[in-house]
Amino acid sequence: MTDASKQIKAAFQGERGAFSEDAARQLLGPMVETLAYRSFDEMFDAVSAGVADCAVAPIENSLAGSVIRNYDLLEERELTIIGETNVRIIHNLIAPEGVRLEDVRHVYSHPVALAQCERFLRAQPQLAAEAAYDTAGSVKMIMERGRPDEAAIAGATAAEVYGAQIIASGIEDNPANFTRFLLLAQPERAAEMATTNRDAERKTTIIFRVANQPGSLFRALAVFALRDIDLTKIESRPIEGRPWEYSFYLDLIGDRHEPRIERALMHLGEMIESIRVLGSYPRHREEV
Amino acid sequence: MTDASKQIKAAFQGERGAFSEDAARQLLGPMVETLAYRSFDEMFDAVSAGVADCAVAPIENSLAGSVIRNYDLLEERELTIIGETNVRIIHNLIAPEGVRLEDVRHVYSHPVALAQCERFLRAQPQLAAEAAYDTAGSVKMIMERGRPDEAAIAGATAAEVYGAQIIASGIEDNPANFTRFLLLAQPERAAEMATTNRDAERKTTIIFRVANQPGSLFRALAVFALRDIDLTKIESRPIEGRPWEYSFYLDLIGDRHEPRIERALMHLGEMIESIRVLGSYPRHREEV
Repeated sequence: MTDASKQIKAAFQGERGAFSEDAARQLLGPMVETLAYRSFDEMFDAVSAGVADCAVAPIENSLAGSVIRNYDLLEERELTIIGETNVRIIHNLIAPEGVRLEDVRHVYSHPVALAQCERFLRAQPQLAAEAAYDTAGSVKMIMERGRPDEAAIAGATAAEVYGAQIIASGIEDNPANFTRFLLLAQPERAAEMATTNRDAERKTTIIFRVANQPGSLFRALAVFALRDIDLTKIESRPIEGRPWEYSFYLDLIGDRHEPRIERALMHLGEMIESIRVLGSYPRHREEV
Repeated sequence: MTDASKQIKAAFQGERGAFSEDAARQLLGPMVETLAYRSFDEMFDAVSAGVADCAVAPIENSLAGSVIRNYDLLEERELTIIGETNVRIIHNLIAPEGVRLEDVRHVYSHPVALAQCERFLRAQPQLAAEAAYDTAGSVKMIMERGRPDEAAIAGATAAEVYGAQIIASGIEDNPANFTRFLLLAQPERAAEMATTNRDAERKTTIIFRVANQPGSLFRALAVFALRDIDLTKIESRPIEGRPWEYSFYLDLIGDRHEPRIERALMHLGEMIESIRVLGSYPRHREEV
């Protein structure tokens, strides 16, 4: 970051201890100041208004798919992507100090988290799964109530934040559970906020629309294939109120200011209706 | 259907009155017998075991994106797609007879449904949103409890099924809210179960894997573009445990047994690692 003396403020959606807050620390270091917002819209607003320097937004999960609301907000609003990271989603059974697994009867969490721990829950038939708004928020709730027969499912950070203990760790059915987060900032602050790792390979995310004619996507992708540009994600989505037309989300390897990428995007702009570059940023390349 | 005297049994996931049950009626007529299952896995099992003749599975929502768990099950299991339909998702505030909007304090529903009605809930600050497992299930719950200050958010069918009244209708923020459902059957019963509308345009769904090399997706799509085959959906997804390789879901217009489609699929099979045709079925083409 540019000025070590100035603390970065990062907005995230959810309660303290959410996986999004872990992502903020992974992207910006342990000293980042995190601001919790109730909805993705409010999180975007906080950055637009300058209350926060940046936002950390989940964009896809390896098991649950794309977070379409955040793609919509990226398309509608003026924020730009300046970074990405992957967070391994590890679910834990969390309860007040002293509570033992055999005492627990009610387990609270977001329905998606409960579904991802189905095998664990089935193996303990005394546990009744109860839906809650979010994972970290369910830890907050059971700690406020302090009942000896209630637990929650959430990440380890939530246990730490609310002073709870982990009774069982890694209880998700499928360990290949990752969420990809994007780091977002106002376009005019992108250069100042961007991480300085100049060695990292760079990625660019774009959204574009094509009419639904045979071969239209093929012609669009030709501009990348002709220049040996590697694509790492592609997803189509129907456009509201315009039957049989589609939006595409596309991630490619390279920076938007590399001549080869610039030319490909210019070429694409000639043949399609609308294209928007959402940002170029260092690729997160971990051991998956 | 082949034999009018034999009632078709359709499996769905969720409680009675779920949008999936509406989809089953839309696909198979009002006389279909519907069987409720707790999870998508159990719904697939019911068809494989012959307990149900077919299953009705949500595969994507216009606002929330693809239901990846069902794509996974389609890839892992042996069922084939024999039909599709789109259901408009209309949310309603539902309560026991006699309860007025001004009496309600707690509103139960699935967190996704609550989020889709955020504007309505914000305009009524006396309403506290409470997470529940599913939409129809939350109507069942409030009707069992019969409290004068509780309501639920769900589809109109759920109100009918549980003898509840609709206090406010169409309360979703965004009316462009559709879920696409697939009708699934055992492959050996596909011909017998298939709807007989021979005039309808047909669609085919495939899953394939490509190595992440520049241009590999482009070359895969060439087999369709060269034959003027229209694609209506494409989505990439990382493959578990094989970093930087991708699965693609693809829908195209045409039947797998048309010579042109057959040749395209054969051509695709020559250049990629694995391809699976999930089914060919009449396209649902409504006014969106």
